[in-house]
Amino acid sequence: MASYYSQEVHGPYHMINIGRLELAEGGVIENCELAVATRGTLNADKSNAILIPTWYSGTSKIMEQVYVGPDHALDPSKYFIVIVNQIGNGLSTSPHNIGGTLGGPNFPKVRISDDVRAQHRLLTEFFGITSLALVVGGSMGAQQTYEWAVRYPDMVKRAAPLAGTACNTEHDFLFTETLEEGITTDPGFRDGRYGTAVDVAVGLRRHAEMWTVMGWSTEFFRLNRHQALGFASADAFVEGFMVPYFAPMDPNNLLAMAWKWQRGDVSLHTGGDKAAALGRIKAKVFVMPFSTDMFFPPSDCLAEQALIPNSAFRPITTVDGHLGLFGTDADAIAQVDLNLRELLALPA
Amino acid sequence: MASYYSQEVHGPYHMINIGRLELAEGGVIENCELAVATRGTLNADKSNAILIPTWYSGTSKIMEQVYVGPDHALDPSKYFIVIVNQIGNGLSTSPHNIGGTLGGPNFPKVRISDDVRAQHRLLTEFFGITSLALVVGGSMGAQQTYEWAVRYPDMVKRAAPLAGTACNTEHDFLFTETLEEGITTDPGFRDGRYGTAVDVAVGLRRHAEMWTVMGWSTEFFRLNRHQALGFASADAFVEGFMVPYFAPMDPNNLLAMAWKWQRGDVSLHTGGDKAAALGRIKAKVFVMPFSTDMFFPPSDCLAEQALIPNSAFRPITTVDGHLGLFGTDADAIAQVDLNLRELLALPA
Repeated sequence: MASYYSQEVHGPYHMINIGRLELAEGGVIENCELAVATRGTLNADKSNAILIPTWYSGTSKIMEQVYVGPDHALDPSKYFIVIVNQIGNGLSTSPHNIGGTLGGPNFPKVRISDDVRAQHRLLTEFFGITSLALVVGGSMGAQQTYEWAVRYPDMVKRAAPLAGTACNTEHDFLFTETLEEGITTDPGFRDGRYGTAVDVAVGLRRHAEMWTVMGWSTEFFRLNRHQALGFASADAFVEGFMVPYFAPMDPNNLLAMAWKWQRGDVSLHTGGDKAAALGRIKAKVFVMPFSTDMFFPPSDCLAEQALIPNSAFRPITTVDGHLGLFGTDADAIAQVDLNLRELLALPA
Repeated sequence: MASYYSQEVHGPYHMINIGRLELAEGGVIENCELAVATRGTLNADKSNAILIPTWYSGTSKIMEQVYVGPDHALDPSKYFIVIVNQIGNGLSTSPHNIGGTLGGPNFPKVRISDDVRAQHRLLTEFFGITSLALVVGGSMGAQQTYEWAVRYPDMVKRAAPLAGTACNTEHDFLFTETLEEGITTDPGFRDGRYGTAVDVAVGLRRHAEMWTVMGWSTEFFRLNRHQALGFASADAFVEGFMVPYFAPMDPNNLLAMAWKWQRGDVSLHTGGDKAAALGRIKAKVFVMPFSTDMFFPPSDCLAEQALIPNSAFRPITTVDGHLGLFGTDADAIAQVDLNLRELLALPA
């Protein structure tokens, strides 16, 4: 059986070494490798590039499967689509694969801003791209999308943060903390010095169960969406989908991403002034929360959208909650496509 | 220091032995003791009795402090108010105090319906009450309120379920499961054979953190309600309020209540037919969800209210989520009072 973090499971992708990456928190990754999947062709004036960053626990694979294709707004026949796996996700440089003294629990703290600077180097130095027609991502991908729009306002022409915020909320921080503690309080975790993910199975199960509660929605279960997805009961859904989804993942990888997720905050650019940070954005922005999202709720996203100059609030109606991002509700994805087509049609 | 489960902390209450209680799941409690707090005086025709059952982790004390008094609808100068602590809550017969072979992890499974039958015996045999002007309770107290109205439709004249459902949802079941597993997967729990709650401190902390995430709401933290309650940060709120609140509680007591909570379901009376069960209710019912409740959301409560003959949907607007039940939002309690006064003024 192929290893979980492999080309067989998540490929094809390219491994690109962007060199030494100095991190916001003071650490250094000497040879930072980014796993990058591309679709389509860069046009002559390099104006058709779209960047897609990835979310917590996800890879480039699900972004390709759910959001990219000839039937989608993100159409490779029109655009050059670059999907960059975030640092720590298991494909790019991560706790489980960096090796040496920085491996496992010694992996340096990486922030959303570090990912965005790494991606900027990748795009400018390796692809010669200096303008992005669109940055679009969900959840932690939305955090990176916002960071891109604030940090490189002249480069990002359009931005579409899905089911995520520019400044992580305290409630969201606490939710993520329960996920982390679910893992780290497993005695098998051994302060990150476990043998394999199997040693932390109890912790990963707790983590999966909390994702089940907060990741979908009350309506999802009331309307028996889990049955529509092929599971006879909520328990079968947990055992057959949620637990197996997370079980093969490396706990230290998840924790590196969780730490980063908790601290996503564009107002670090402006001494904590959220309005000033979001006011820097020059991109045209469609803010797209998912209507039943329990931890990036529309109300939090609306409060941010109001601070972004050229923006519109475009909530996606779905009962599938945050994990509607997985593409379980085809109608939600159709709404995303409709909005992205409209956004892409706006003059840069 | 007084023991947590004591008159000093939660009294005054009376311990009343209602005798042998045969349980729905097949177990038996030979000498079932109910901890009962009363306020006011029963009138001559015994028509002014109000019953208040208790919620998960709560006792009669908080119901008295938040909902009962001369300034509230539940006014002891008008009504005889009987607050009955649920079985397993630590004051009434519970895993930690039953002693003998049924103690701790061997405590028999108790259902909402068992509590309601026990309370019925208490009211009819010890107080000679055959008519209830009102049954009102929050959360698991709402589950008992619904069970009362369906099981004894002629006895219950009015019913006010706050922030709870008649039939527990699958989503709510899963949430409660994360609470249970947070506790039971602590190695110190030792299958329920721990020494004291301190041995299960890690599990109780996980349990408290999940309550923090789901018990309040995203808006609660966005609007800095935790600061208004006197805590400088969300972390301080967790450490200073949520963790200490649950820390002294007996884990087996909590698990007995959690098991019961998960299975609250009036449709057991009618072979699973929810509409038929709720259709039996003769009481006038005000269904009062809390607007930002993350696990008994208004949408679930509205679906049930539509099936109750003489009912009205009266959501309570608050940003404090489910734990607004604690009385943290005075305006929410004022709304409850307003509705209860209107309900109590309706002819029986």
